[in-house]
Amino acid sequence: MSNYTKTHIGDEGRVELHETLSLTGAEISINKLPAGANVPFIHSHKNNEEIYGIVDGKGKVIIDNETIELKAGDWLKINPEAKRQFFAASDSQITYICIQVKENSLDAFTADDAIVYSY
Amino acid sequence: MSNYTKTHIGDEGRVELHETLSLTGAEISINKLPAGANVPFIHSHKNNEEIYGIVDGKGKVIIDNETIELKAGDWLKINPEAKRQFFAASDSQITYICIQVKENSLDAFTADDAIVYSY
Repeated sequence: MSNYTKTHIGDEGRVELHETLSLTGAEISINKLPAGANVPFIHSHKNNEEIYGIVDGKGKVIIDNETIELKAGDWLKINPEAKRQFFAASDSQITYICIQVKENSLDAFTADDAIVYSY
Repeated sequence: MSNYTKTHIGDEGRVELHETLSLTGAEISINKLPAGANVPFIHSHKNNEEIYGIVDGKGKVIIDNETIELKAGDWLKINPEAKRQFFAASDSQITYICIQVKENSLDAFTADDAIVYSY
C-alpha cells in the first residue's frame, strides 16, 4: 500500500482534505470568500486549535470582538475557546488555509521526531 | 491574555511557526527552494504524519523511491515511515507549506468539535 495520498485543488470555494487525503492528525480546508462575503456564523471549538494562513487577497477576522485586518502572508493561531468569524474585504476576495488540530497533541517534532538517512 | 497569536511571512527561504505562534498541536513551516535546489537529505518520521501543500512553482518529491511531480495546488499526506525528499524543478522555484502533526491525534473535528453561536 502506498505511503502517501495526493490531490489537486483548483479554484473551488471550500475544499476539505480530511477524507480526500485520509488525514489522521488534522483537518485542513482551503477556503475562498468572494469580495463582500463572510462566514455566516461565529464559532469556537471544544478541543481543537485552528491555524489560519492567508494565501491570497485580504479581509478581516473578528476574534472575541477584536477586529484583525488580514492580508496574504498573515498566519494566526486561534485558541479553541475564542469566538471567531472571517470576512473578505469589500473590494477583495480572501483565500485562506485553515488547519484544525487537537490542542496539546504534538509531542516531539522536526529533528526530535525525524530519522535522517545518509546517501 | 489574548486568545490568538499572529505573524506575517514574506519571502524568507524557510520559516517555522511553532514557537512564533505558540502552536501546541502542529509544527508548520513555509519553505522555498530555488530552481535546481533540493532538501539536502532524505528523512522519515517516528510518530508524525506530514501534509504538504504546494503554493507556488513546481518540482518533485521522491517518496520511497517513487517520483511524484508537483505543481501549485497539489496537496499530499505522507505517512511517518515513508522516506521523502523534495526538489525544486531545474527551471522553477517551489514554495510549499509543511504541516507536521502526530499520527492519529485528531478526534472530533469541524461540526463535531465546533460550538456555533447565533447572533
